[in-house]
Amino acid sequence: MLIGAIEAGGTKIICAVGDGSGEIRAKQSIPTREPEETLQEVKAFFSAYDLDALGVGSFGPVDLNRDSGTYGTILNTPKAAWKHFNLLGRLQADYEIPVYIDTDVNAACLAEYHHGAGIDVNSCLYITVGTGIGAGLVQNGQTFQGKSHPEMGHIMVPKHGTDPFTGVCPYHGNCLEGMASGPAIEERHGRKGHLLDDHPYVWELEAHYLAHAIVTYTLVLFPERIILGGGVMKQKLLLSLIREKVSRLLNGYVDVGEMDKFITAPALDDEQGVKGAIALAAGNV
Amino acid sequence: MLIGAIEAGGTKIICAVGDGSGEIRAKQSIPTREPEETLQEVKAFFSAYDLDALGVGSFGPVDLNRDSGTYGTILNTPKAAWKHFNLLGRLQADYEIPVYIDTDVNAACLAEYHHGAGIDVNSCLYITVGTGIGAGLVQNGQTFQGKSHPEMGHIMVPKHGTDPFTGVCPYHGNCLEGMASGPAIEERHGRKGHLLDDHPYVWELEAHYLAHAIVTYTLVLFPERIILGGGVMKQKLLLSLIREKVSRLLNGYVDVGEMDKFITAPALDDEQGVKGAIALAAGNV
Repeated sequence: MLIGAIEAGGTKIICAVGDGSGEIRAKQSIPTREPEETLQEVKAFFSAYDLDALGVGSFGPVDLNRDSGTYGTILNTPKAAWKHFNLLGRLQADYEIPVYIDTDVNAACLAEYHHGAGIDVNSCLYITVGTGIGAGLVQNGQTFQGKSHPEMGHIMVPKHGTDPFTGVCPYHGNCLEGMASGPAIEERHGRKGHLLDDHPYVWELEAHYLAHAIVTYTLVLFPERIILGGGVMKQKLLLSLIREKVSRLLNGYVDVGEMDKFITAPALDDEQGVKGAIALAAGNV
Repeated sequence: MLIGAIEAGGTKIICAVGDGSGEIRAKQSIPTREPEETLQEVKAFFSAYDLDALGVGSFGPVDLNRDSGTYGTILNTPKAAWKHFNLLGRLQADYEIPVYIDTDVNAACLAEYHHGAGIDVNSCLYITVGTGIGAGLVQNGQTFQGKSHPEMGHIMVPKHGTDPFTGVCPYHGNCLEGMASGPAIEERHGRKGHLLDDHPYVWELEAHYLAHAIVTYTLVLFPERIILGGGVMKQKLLLSLIREKVSRLLNGYVDVGEMDKFITAPALDDEQGVKGAIALAAGNV
């Protein structure tokens, strides 16, 4: 079985081919321009392969409600040319093979579940903390969604007592993404996060907001494992600061087991998105 | 098919018999005393029926992790005689028929999904606001759980600007249950909620906390419908106050459809728990 994968991001689209075992046979990165031009380049890459199915992990929001007339369409994105673009429909027309679509963060979660840090559990939540904050849940091999995909990065979190910042989310101001995304760190402190390693207060605030969100996700979803990825999580001390705060906030109320196993770093680095897109298609074919 | 139902609450246990159509053939309420005495009365009631299966909606927390050695056991409850009582094991031994167990609020959600206010949707969240606050999600006929059942009533919610109250939750102080349960209303205002109908500020605060929680549940779970039950919700204006605040807080960020259909009152009144327990067993037999 040969499966094509598309990880569609705001700045680049990564295409790959694999067989579902978790290994990637070929890969190419294409800059995200207008849909027509970009998808022609994507097609050129895949033309060398006789694919059985295609999996897509897309930036969002994307309509994942199967009962909707616009299932598989990109919704209200700041990237004007992609707004209301029927990505799934276009790929189905281009390739004439089964095409499966999910969000980028759900794809990342599927990859960690099948091949990475979630390989030994039945449910795991993957949270990415970068330009935005998003999260995806996989349970028993399936990505979770209700009417459509969750928007977990936009929940409200209690303000840190010494933080005067009002947040950068254009929709909600001081929601989690507004207070703790990469752009929030840069706006609040005047420099990007990776230049602020020696400023403990920066990471105290960051851990505060992420720990509160993790406690909420735990009380609502009770995953067996939480995997924290994305650029902001590359700060070395952040993971252990978050674990400490989550322990204190949960206060033994629910039994999450050992904290070091409950909250972990990802095991897959760069190829998470395409490996997840392959897993999505492989699990449905 | 004849199914027995047990709705196990802190003060009473309701037993019923039905055939899975949603109709109840017989019902009896038994005061909740010590497990031995109580379950003998339960057995006396069911002895007149030749049951095919038994469904149980239980007060919690109850261990619902099927991989756990204590699956079906009541966990850390203030009711000392029931703490660590293996309810599922005992019922399996007593009845020698398949026994299915879930939380009381999950059972209520199943009942509304199959026979009540959730009959026309694929996913619904039922929230009970009473002595405690709890919530259960049903998707495609199944109750949602991760490692075990959620504890959604204990999420943190942003404090109302003019509220000096510090909350009544013994674990978290000012979590949702600590700020908005029946006992929280009584402790804050010195009287029970049903005696405070003419005090708009009471319901302004109540709607504030519940609306914030509903927005969080919506962003994490994205249910098609949210059903608000429990004693506190009997206040007439509360439902519309909550709808207004949820609209304002969501700010069009996710498409929940018409607010009056998104957030509703329950359709089943007193028999929710037993009807849900029957649906639980009927869906598994």
